[in-house]
Amino acid sequence: MSSSFGKLFRISTWGESHGGGVGVVIDGCPPNIEISEADIQIDLDRRKPGQSEIVTPRDEADQCEILSGVFEGKTLGTPIAILVRNKDARPEAYGEMKDKFRPSHADYTYQAKYGIRNWQGGGRASARETIGRVAAASVAKKVLQGKFASKLEIIAWVKSVRDIVADVDPDQVQFGTIESNIVRTGDPQAVEPMIDLIKTMRAEGNSVGGVVECVVRQMPVGLGEPVFDKLEADLAKAMLSLPACKGFEVGSGFAGTQMTGSEHNDPFYMENDRVRTSSNRSGGIQGGISNGENLVFRLAFKPTATIMSSQATVSSDGQDTELTGRGRHDPCVLPRAVPMVEAMAALVLCDHALRQAAQNG
Amino acid sequence: MSSSFGKLFRISTWGESHGGGVGVVIDGCPPNIEISEADIQIDLDRRKPGQSEIVTPRDEADQCEILSGVFEGKTLGTPIAILVRNKDARPEAYGEMKDKFRPSHADYTYQAKYGIRNWQGGGRASARETIGRVAAASVAKKVLQGKFASKLEIIAWVKSVRDIVADVDPDQVQFGTIESNIVRTGDPQAVEPMIDLIKTMRAEGNSVGGVVECVVRQMPVGLGEPVFDKLEADLAKAMLSLPACKGFEVGSGFAGTQMTGSEHNDPFYMENDRVRTSSNRSGGIQGGISNGENLVFRLAFKPTATIMSSQATVSSDGQDTELTGRGRHDPCVLPRAVPMVEAMAALVLCDHALRQAAQNG
Amino acid sequence: MSSSFGKLFRISTWGESHGGGVGVVIDGCPPNIEISEADIQIDLDRRKPGQSEIVTPRDEADQCEILSGVFEGKTLGTPIAILVRNKDARPEAYGEMKDKFRPSHADYTYQAKYGIRNWQGGGRASARETIGRVAAASVAKKVLQGKFASKLEIIAWVKSVRDIVADVDPDQVQFGTIESNIVRTGDPQAVEPMIDLIKTMRAEGNSVGGVVECVVRQMPVGLGEPVFDKLEADLAKAMLSLPACKGFEVGSGFAGTQMTGSEHNDPFYMENDRVRTSSNRSGGIQGGISNGENLVFRLAFKPTATIMSSQATVSSDGQDTELTGRGRHDPCVLPRAVPMVEAMAALVLCDHALRQAAQNG
Amino acid sequence: MSSSFGKLFRISTWGESHGGGVGVVIDGCPPNIEISEADIQIDLDRRKPGQSEIVTPRDEADQCEILSGVFEGKTLGTPIAILVRNKDARPEAYGEMKDKFRPSHADYTYQAKYGIRNWQGGGRASARETIGRVAAASVAKKVLQGKFASKLEIIAWVKSVRDIVADVDPDQVQFGTIESNIVRTGDPQAVEPMIDLIKTMRAEGNSVGGVVECVVRQMPVGLGEPVFDKLEADLAKAMLSLPACKGFEVGSGFAGTQMTGSEHNDPFYMENDRVRTSSNRSGGIQGGISNGENLVFRLAFKPTATIMSSQATVSSDGQDTELTGRGRHDPCVLPRAVPMVEAMAALVLCDHALRQAAQNG
Repeated sequence: MSSSFGKLFRISTWGESHGGGVGVVIDGCPPNIEISEADIQIDLDRRKPGQSEIVTPRDEADQCEILSGVFEGKTLGTPIAILVRNKDARPEAYGEMKDKFRPSHADYTYQAKYGIRNWQGGGRASARETIGRVAAASVAKKVLQGKFASKLEIIAWVKSVRDIVADVDPDQVQFGTIESNIVRTGDPQAVEPMIDLIKTMRAEGNSVGGVVECVVRQMPVGLGEPVFDKLEADLAKAMLSLPACKGFEVGSGFAGTQMTGSEHNDPFYMENDRVRTSSNRSGGIQGGISNGENLVFRLAFKPTATIMSSQATVSSDGQDTELTGRGRHDPCVLPRAVPMVEAMAALVLCDHALRQAAQNG
Repeated sequence: MSSSFGKLFRISTWGESHGGGVGVVIDGCPPNIEISEADIQIDLDRRKPGQSEIVTPRDEADQCEILSGVFEGKTLGTPIAILVRNKDARPEAYGEMKDKFRPSHADYTYQAKYGIRNWQGGGRASARETIGRVAAASVAKKVLQGKFASKLEIIAWVKSVRDIVADVDPDQVQFGTIESNIVRTGDPQAVEPMIDLIKTMRAEGNSVGGVVECVVRQMPVGLGEPVFDKLEADLAKAMLSLPACKGFEVGSGFAGTQMTGSEHNDPFYMENDRVRTSSNRSGGIQGGISNGENLVFRLAFKPTATIMSSQATVSSDGQDTELTGRGRHDPCVLPRAVPMVEAMAALVLCDHALRQAAQNG
Repeated sequence: MSSSFGKLFRISTWGESHGGGVGVVIDGCPPNIEISEADIQIDLDRRKPGQSEIVTPRDEADQCEILSGVFEGKTLGTPIAILVRNKDARPEAYGEMKDKFRPSHADYTYQAKYGIRNWQGGGRASARETIGRVAAASVAKKVLQGKFASKLEIIAWVKSVRDIVADVDPDQVQFGTIESNIVRTGDPQAVEPMIDLIKTMRAEGNSVGGVVECVVRQMPVGLGEPVFDKLEADLAKAMLSLPACKGFEVGSGFAGTQMTGSEHNDPFYMENDRVRTSSNRSGGIQGGISNGENLVFRLAFKPTATIMSSQATVSSDGQDTELTGRGRHDPCVLPRAVPMVEAMAALVLCDHALRQAAQNG
Repeated sequence: MSSSFGKLFRISTWGESHGGGVGVVIDGCPPNIEISEADIQIDLDRRKPGQSEIVTPRDEADQCEILSGVFEGKTLGTPIAILVRNKDARPEAYGEMKDKFRPSHADYTYQAKYGIRNWQGGGRASARETIGRVAAASVAKKVLQGKFASKLEIIAWVKSVRDIVADVDPDQVQFGTIESNIVRTGDPQAVEPMIDLIKTMRAEGNSVGGVVECVVRQMPVGLGEPVFDKLEADLAKAMLSLPACKGFEVGSGFAGTQMTGSEHNDPFYMENDRVRTSSNRSGGIQGGISNGENLVFRLAFKPTATIMSSQATVSSDGQDTELTGRGRHDPCVLPRAVPMVEAMAALVLCDHALRQAAQNG
């Protein structure tokens, strides 16, 4: 059951990077939500390869087809199946991987776990798997805005690339600012340095990581549940399930450990009829439940494991050997991770909105 | 369904901090595992209040009773129900909280979500809820060691308290070292400074946070699943579900974003018949699946929200007001968080071990 | 996960017939529902042993204690734990069962599955396990009536005992009629013959089965889901999970196979603004979803497996042997099955009401 | 979550009768199981329309495509997506259904539940939905035979059509006997009468129902779980989820209520090292767990709701009206229900086999 996510807005993704295609089935979607292939394509295009000079050149249109669950432009309440065919698979580039495990990839662990793997690419560990997530999240956003929070905004950006840190105010940053540059950061000053660093890395056959930050504005109060399914817990799981993600923090996060309680607490005050906090070190969540303030969290993405230099590794028959990376890849996953982060946030929030409607509606 | 965790080794905790008691039901436990109330009590005693001068003085024996699922000292394979009565509840200390929301606590969000709350204490948001988790994890550890990995070690410690950082080698640190000091750190040099800082904070009516680090040694290969239920994703969720936890990172974590791919990748080599990596920036997980290296992760805990100074807040009828903390509390949650972190790790690993047995056994 | 039921109104029962007690944890209950131990006790008293001369004389008060999730008489939205202690356990009566498998009981299959069993009684296969279900259903009925269908009635009765068939109109039968006789049938003419037959069976050390029928009146339209979680499918599972249940049919059931389509179809007509059917061979469900007509279904219960005559069996060490039943037992499970059937119906309906609220609310 | 089934061998079906197609995603399948599109096609061909003169003439090849999860002829352990396109959809035949509800179909309840429906056919309530189940069950059978019970046989047949009852011995009947006749019964004497009755019904524009019986031979001991997920409970749910199914009984079923305990109990005896029962009124299940005897159960299927005569109904705007059936349909669902019943049995058993491996392996 590793490929399903969510309790009530439940998605099941499927597909390897090299094979018939990839896709998703969404179960539990409310009916009468307007959705079209064109709506979904907008989000898929932000995720797809080949969209700029700093991402992988794999040539995939990632054109989606809705196979079920939508009738005359509206959701039926029945499962929505979405299919994207693989086009530009090049298994020949992976021939060497048949017998050698790429360092810091999933080749070895898949082989050890299952005793078999599709070595013609990354299989389920490929970022192509996230197509299904992004497509499902397009629907989730429509549900959230149509039924629960019409003005809800989910916006992510590249906060840092290695040591280049963007200066971005989560309460103010605009989607247009981020989408106006190919690295997808919210700080115009950081755009060129980040792009230059990524290009340098690519030229060296190397790679680089960084941090993505995400804000959700116009949040409903009351999403998330006590104990295990705290909103931050489900967000953490969602984000750590993304390829290359190594860390998650919400609100003050790790930096908050440097403060005392009297510095860290968020005082309450009334703003007309609404309960507000005058600071937001909680990141919009208290006791696992949203308090209506902006949801703010950050994720660490490691440098891409595919590099063009020779590395020590072992073969599938247990011999020490070497391997030099080949094939198309992203020298930095962050620009394409931004829509994936937004997608996972939308999926978590939509699921919790339905859960809230069930118990407390 | 907020109070259940795990797919196959599934626990359901229940109970408020003030009420009949707290407990857990474990469903799906394999049969014929030896377990006793005394075994569980060992772990509960590490978690309980009043165990040292730097934790809350609430006087609870936290004596557990196994109500079902164990017969003649062995598990039956049926649900194991464990009960701990509340003894030293003092609802009178919470009278003011009936009408005022404590800043950075869950009072407001519970009230907003449910329209009702047990104001006589922290309810489900109290750390007393973790009794059920720790008790269940005692059983989980027996299952792991009895059926899957006889030498498995799960060891956590306080890595830092505010700016005091312990120097601990996850590959070498011993359980006895950590348990020999009341702050539960693995670095003898850090013990006194940490205790002094916590005592100072308590004297000031203030509080402090920090970082807990955890290692799992003698890990089986192959635990964790592709895509959503990656081992790090389930660990992240488990840890972020603990009270006061604000961040999670695995292996190189956030610091890994400062490295290039060629610096960060973990080369493979053969050690006799076993595939090993010569570094462990992956933290023991690749593609969501354990590779047999030590599992290493860290968690940020915020400073305790309960402080003894006056804070701005609002009343339940929507008026600005002030509130001064009362009642017993931990000036620093970290020493008692250590067994909770180990417990959540054990629960995640036991669940994934059973899942692995189901699909690939 | 064999001991949990329901997706949103989720119950987890625990406890063996001989041990610390039995109970249930309810997760996902809406808040602000009024409930008390006295409310629950009413239902438990209808289920308990010793209530009349035709049921088992085991002497259990089955007094319940609510341990959590209720505050000042109302549900908190958090898990509700309910405990009933075992009092009149007599393990000495089961000594012979330690080494011999009782025919048509669960002794052999439990032993074969788990390699261990609590032989001091029926363990989880005992009807005592249903205490948790009945207690949880008390809460479920309050939720249904409080939030979804204020006039909802769930009424079951004994339709037949062996060949004695009661004449009962599901649209008209009253709860009071059924509760006025110890056999719990809805036909006054059938009361004495049924009681006589059961007493005869008991006197002979034998046992007898029969059919329970159940109606739900004032049903909301729209409960149940297409495909796998059809309302009749979830009811069938719920009912077949009761001890001794061997069959389920809804509406026309097996008898409906004797009709043609033109005889069987239920024509629609308008009754003011409401869509009605002029017959109800569908039993209130079409396409898995309730249509607002009365829900009607029937269950077959086999004769109790415990009988007082000598039977051929085998010992746990694999020898042919004989066994004569001992201990207290019901010569006919039907009178006590009636509240269990109502309970399972309430649990299914409450769960589907919350699911409906989540997706279509 | 209405469209997923199973806990560990989990299938999610999708697709309407009129739309892009239908299909299934299987999650949790063990790796290294040999499977091909040709294997699956064998089962789909037994289910497809147009295969004989007594079933619907809708012209669908029902050709399946495996999109993921299989590599070089073996399962990868990752999700298996299977797609079947709709070819011979004729929405024009359904024009009148846009505004009128067909009696005893799901039109009204879908509309009432969701406020929208795909009126161009039966939507999810169409028997086309079962394509995904049958395809998934092909894989399930390979898993069962490959990993758990190499000689396992799952065989269903038509036991009765209206009042024509076949004489079939579940312990002896052969698959070839059943497949040798288009009505799929196991009694050569019953073939012609059944076919004649179905043809008569078709000629009259009427329809007819009946009973399907199923046996599973060479059953492993220990499948099924105590309490809610009893093997018979999960089978009952599986079967009642099939279109037109109105009843389920296992072993002695409803007829068993006519027996006394001393007549009904199944005595144990040793057959070499194996525990056997000398009768099988339990139907192979005791306490919810398989005992190794043949699993035997029966299902009632109502007469097809689509008939060619005029029926009273109502329109979607709430007016009394009439409707005469049109379009292609099965005058009797039973011949095509046989492979569906076998499929659901395979899915339940495969899921429980994996669950057994997880907890008791």
